[in-house]
Amino acid sequence: MFCLTVRDHIMIAHSFRGEVFGPAQRLHGATFVVDLELRRPDLDADGIVADIGLVGELLKSVLAPINYRNLDDLPEFEGRNTTTEVLAREICHRVRDRIRDGALGEEASAALESLKVTLRESHIAWASYETGLRSG
Amino acid sequence: MFCLTVRDHIMIAHSFRGEVFGPAQRLHGATFVVDLELRRPDLDADGIVADIGLVGELLKSVLAPINYRNLDDLPEFEGRNTTTEVLAREICHRVRDRIRDGALGEEASAALESLKVTLRESHIAWASYETGLRSG
Amino acid sequence: MFCLTVRDHIMIAHSFRGEVFGPAQRLHGATFVVDLELRRPDLDADGIVADIGLVGELLKSVLAPINYRNLDDLPEFEGRNTTTEVLAREICHRVRDRIRDGALGEEASAALESLKVTLRESHIAWASYETGLRSG
Amino acid sequence: MFCLTVRDHIMIAHSFRGEVFGPAQRLHGATFVVDLELRRPDLDADGIVADIGLVGELLKSVLAPINYRNLDDLPEFEGRNTTTEVLAREICHRVRDRIRDGALGEEASAALESLKVTLRESHIAWASYETGLRSG
Amino acid sequence: MFCLTVRDHIMIAHSFRGEVFGPAQRLHGATFVVDLELRRPDLDADGIVADIGLVGELLKSVLAPINYRNLDDLPEFEGRNTTTEVLAREICHRVRDRIRDGALGEEASAALESLKVTLRESHIAWASYETGLRSG
Amino acid sequence: MFCLTVRDHIMIAHSFRGEVFGPAQRLHGATFVVDLELRRPDLDADGIVADIGLVGELLKSVLAPINYRNLDDLPEFEGRNTTTEVLAREICHRVRDRIRDGALGEEASAALESLKVTLRESHIAWASYETGLRSG
Repeated sequence: MFCLTVRDHIMIAHSFRGEVFGPAQRLHGATFVVDLELRRPDLDADGIVADIGLVGELLKSVLAPINYRNLDDLPEFEGRNTTTEVLAREICHRVRDRIRDGALGEEASAALESLKVTLRESHIAWASYETGLRSG
Repeated sequence: MFCLTVRDHIMIAHSFRGEVFGPAQRLHGATFVVDLELRRPDLDADGIVADIGLVGELLKSVLAPINYRNLDDLPEFEGRNTTTEVLAREICHRVRDRIRDGALGEEASAALESLKVTLRESHIAWASYETGLRSG
Repeated sequence: MFCLTVRDHIMIAHSFRGEVFGPAQRLHGATFVVDLELRRPDLDADGIVADIGLVGELLKSVLAPINYRNLDDLPEFEGRNTTTEVLAREICHRVRDRIRDGALGEEASAALESLKVTLRESHIAWASYETGLRSG
Repeated sequence: MFCLTVRDHIMIAHSFRGEVFGPAQRLHGATFVVDLELRRPDLDADGIVADIGLVGELLKSVLAPINYRNLDDLPEFEGRNTTTEVLAREICHRVRDRIRDGALGEEASAALESLKVTLRESHIAWASYETGLRSG
Repeated sequence: MFCLTVRDHIMIAHSFRGEVFGPAQRLHGATFVVDLELRRPDLDADGIVADIGLVGELLKSVLAPINYRNLDDLPEFEGRNTTTEVLAREICHRVRDRIRDGALGEEASAALESLKVTLRESHIAWASYETGLRSG
Repeated sequence: MFCLTVRDHIMIAHSFRGEVFGPAQRLHGATFVVDLELRRPDLDADGIVADIGLVGELLKSVLAPINYRNLDDLPEFEGRNTTTEVLAREICHRVRDRIRDGALGEEASAALESLKVTLRESHIAWASYETGLRSG
C-alpha cells in the first residue's frame, strides 16, 4: 500500500456546547495543522499516488471556506460542535467528494482506495478521521 | 474511523540484560515522549472520541508510578527488560484496563475500539504497541 | 550564558483592524505554542537557571487569563491588534513583572538577565519578543 | 501489534519525465528523511521487535548505494521516475529482501510480519510504502 | 527586540569541489527548509514586524530562481561551492537587497534592523547566516 | 555571522540533590537530544564553517564517555547536580577544548568565534550554554 501526505493549516474561532468542554465553551480559537493522506495499492503510470500539486490545491480549496472564520457563524455547522474530530471528518468528506468529482483526475479517482485527515490542534493533541473513497 | 491522540512524557532509569543491548546493559536512562491514541468508529453526542481532559489525566495517572523511577527497582518489571516495546505494551494495557474500569466514562468505555501507545526515545527511534479494547 | 526554555500553549479567538491583515480582519483564532526562555550568566547553587517547576507554573498562570478567550473582548487589548508580535511582548512583560515580584524566588529574580517569549502560530510562522529583566 | 521505527536520511539528485511534474522535470534534488518501521505481533525473548543496532545498520546499508547520487545515472532506475513513492517502495523491498536473507537474525526474520518505509521530502510532504514480509 | 519568522523550502541539485566533502563531491541534492527571520526594535502602527503575506511572497520570489535547479548550472555560483552556509548567505543578501528596494514597504525598510536565514538540510544538520539590514 | 549546527543524543541516568528537584531527587534518567552550534564571521576557502563530518565525530566523541551511563557514578560530576544546564556547559567546554586542540583543524580553530550547546530533555523543556572559543 502507498500513502501520500501533504500539509496545510487553518486558523479559526469557535465555541463548544456541553459541560465536558469546560473553558472551551467560551469563544476561543485554534490553528489546525492539517495533514491529508491518500492511499492506493498501486502507482499510476508516472510513478505517483496523485499529482501532488493538485492535491495541495484541492486541500487548500477545501480549507478556504472555513479558514479565517468563526465556525459558530457558518450555517453548515449549526447545532453541531466543531470539535477537532468533527472538523477532521468534515474536511475528509469534502476532499473525498471532490476526488469523486474528478479533482485529482480520472485515474486517481478510480485508483485511490482511502484517505485520512489529521488535525493537529497543539504540540500535545491531535485527531484524525479516515474513510474509504467509495464508502459513505 | 476516528482517532484522538494526546502527548505526555516520562523520565526513567533502567538497564537491560542480554548481549544484544551492548552499552545499554549499563544503568542508563531515557525520556520517553508518550503518545496515547484512542480509536472508535463513531463520535459521542458531544462530537468527540473522549473527554480530552480525562484522557490527559488518565495518561498522567498511568505514567505517574513509573515516572522519575529506576525501573530496575520496580517489582512489577522484575526479571524483564523494560525495553521501549515492553513499556509501550505495559502502558497500553494499564490504560486499557483503566478505560474498561470506566476512567473515561461509560459511553467511551463501550464505544472505544482500540488504542495505541507510542514511546519516542529519541529523535531517531520510537516504538509502539496497539491492542483492541476488548481483546487480551 | 545559560538559557532555560519551557513550552506551553493557548487557544484564542481574535480579529485584526487594518487592510494589511486581509482575511484575518474577520473573527478567527489561533493556537499559540508558547516558548519562554530565561537567560542568566551563571547558575544558582543547585546548578539550575531557575526551578523548572516554578517556571512552568509561572508561564501557565500568565497564560490563564487569555487562554480560551476572544481577545477582542478583553479590556486590556482594547484599541490594539493582538498580533503574534503584540502578544509575545505582552506575555513577556507579564512574566518579567512576575519574576521581579519574586515568582521564581529572590535569587533568580536578582540573577536572571533577560527573557524571550516565542509564539508559534503554525508550522510555517512564528514571532518572538525579548527584553532585559531590568529594562523597560 | 508492536512497531519499531528508526530514522536516517539520504541526499540525492534526480529529474522526472512527465508534464505532471512541472519544474521538477528539471534536474533538482531532495533530502529524504527515511523512517523504517518494522511490525510483529509478539516480542522476542529479549523483549524487542529487533536489535535496533542491526536495524540501523541495515537501513544505512540499503541507503548507501543511492545516497549522494544522481539517481538519473543509476541503471536500476533507468526508464522509471524516482518519485518519493517509487523510492519508498524500492527501499522497502530492499530492506525486506535483506531481512529475509537474515540481516536481522533468524528469529526476527521468522517473526516480523510487515514493514513500512516513509520518505519525508519536506516539512509539508511525505510518502510511504508498506508490505508484508512474506508477500511479493 | 521583536522577531518574525516564516518558513518555505527549495529542492536543488549540486556537487562540491574539495576533498573535505567526501561523497558530496558527487552530484547529489538537498531539500532546504528555509527560515527567514526579520528583527526590529519596535512594531509598526498595525502592531507587526512586517506584512507576513509580503514576507512570504518575498521569500518565495527570492527562492524561485534557485528552486528545482542544478546549482552547478547557474552562472552566479560558478567557481563556488553552494554549501548550506553559502546558500544561507546568498539568500539572506538577496532578501536584504529586496527589502532595501522596498519589497516590504517603506516603513519596514527603515525600521528593520537585521535578518537571519536558516537552511535545514536534514533532521540532524542546519546552517544560518545573519546580517544587519544596513551593513554590507 | 554564520552558524552550523549538528544534532546527536545521549541516554543517561542520574539523580539530583536539593528539595527544589522534587521527584527528580530519585534515580531517574533522560534522553538528551544535543545540538552543537558553531559560529564564525567568515567561511573558510571551501565555503564552510567547519568540516561537518569532523564536527559530528567530535560531538560523538565528547558524548561517548557519558552516554549510557549513570552520571552519579562518574567521578568528574561528584558533588555536583548533573542538571540539563550543567551538562550543557560541560559538553560545551569539552567541545571547546577539543577545538582548541585542533579537532576541527587549524583553520577552524583560529576562525571559530563561539559555540553553543543545547540539550533537549523533552518536547516541552530544554537548556543551553554558549561561550566564546577563546574565553574561559
